[in-house]
Amino acid sequence: MAEQKATNVTWHDHTVTKSERQKLKGHKSAVLWFTGLSGAGKSTVANTVDHLLHSKGIHTYVLDGDNIRMGLNKNLGFSAEDRAENIRRIGEVAKLFADSGTFVLTAFISPYRVDRDRARQILGEGEFIEVYVNASLATCEGRDPKGLYKKARAGEIKGFTGIDDPYEEPLKPEITLDSDGKGIDDLAAEVVQYLKDNGYLSA
Amino acid sequence: MAEQKATNVTWHDHTVTKSERQKLKGHKSAVLWFTGLSGAGKSTVANTVDHLLHSKGIHTYVLDGDNIRMGLNKNLGFSAEDRAENIRRIGEVAKLFADSGTFVLTAFISPYRVDRDRARQILGEGEFIEVYVNASLATCEGRDPKGLYKKARAGEIKGFTGIDDPYEEPLKPEITLDSDGKGIDDLAAEVVQYLKDNGYLSA
Repeated sequence: MAEQKATNVTWHDHTVTKSERQKLKGHKSAVLWFTGLSGAGKSTVANTVDHLLHSKGIHTYVLDGDNIRMGLNKNLGFSAEDRAENIRRIGEVAKLFADSGTFVLTAFISPYRVDRDRARQILGEGEFIEVYVNASLATCEGRDPKGLYKKARAGEIKGFTGIDDPYEEPLKPEITLDSDGKGIDDLAAEVVQYLKDNGYLSA
Repeated sequence: MAEQKATNVTWHDHTVTKSERQKLKGHKSAVLWFTGLSGAGKSTVANTVDHLLHSKGIHTYVLDGDNIRMGLNKNLGFSAEDRAENIRRIGEVAKLFADSGTFVLTAFISPYRVDRDRARQILGEGEFIEVYVNASLATCEGRDPKGLYKKARAGEIKGFTGIDDPYEEPLKPEITLDSDGKGIDDLAAEVVQYLKDNGYLSA
């Protein structure tokens, strides 16, 4: 019995806490959750913010289609169930990164409120910063960087957000970016300013 | 067409690379994959190594049952398929952490070679460090910190590794720890020495 207790004590003594991890990094950690239509600029703004923060010595990481869809979530399709599971897993991984002291930026359409709210709920107070990249459907369809709207209009893609599947706008996002009217660098600067104004960039 | 190309260029210009993330942290990144029987000391050694590395200013994170089973993998059970998926997801998340420049330590029984080898394959050369925490079944069963062996022997748990499910020893682990003969601090020191000897602790 004594042996077992000792083992437990050792384990707890040596666990590095979240706040110790943040202290090493010199700043708080949180999730910047970018949401918006395809073509709204989520990935571009997120990567630009990432670049700005990194250049200030902030420890960051970006989760987006490039590193999630072909890896962790490669066994998920586009059924309603799989879409929910996609966002659930992203929320859980974002939570792990925040726990590690990292500023994590996620860039996914994440069209449903219930899925985004679940991610918010598993994170601590102030750790989930919802960034609504707001652009009109007309703007996004005009950009159509991957040709997806064209395919959706032609019926080659079913259940495409904004065309034949809904996008549920955030009701109370921490940040709303006007992607119709402003350029990438201005939008990214707004996000960084929010983090400064709200005390995220000091430990 | 010009508009689309410009968007792509912007995205790429602003992407922070893995090597830039490592440079900010001041060291390389890799996965320390602890494997071994239940009770061998994987979590305890991993957390002790984590503590040692953290105290040297190394940016680390631990993935173990505490933060994975109730979160990312809470929708997985213990069927053969779910066990494989459990380890697959852990490997993918470990890869993301390594990509972020973080030294990540994973502590799961991970009894099957094929599952561990798949994690090794998705990581780059030298990024997967398999740490075999080698303790005899008798030692582990004698420790039985969670009372699981007792339950497995009583038939209350089915498919328990070492009792009625196999543990496949690593064939060429980077590190083998003698958990029968040595104490936790010595084992942890061996892991840190391996990292020093192999150039992992400098950028």
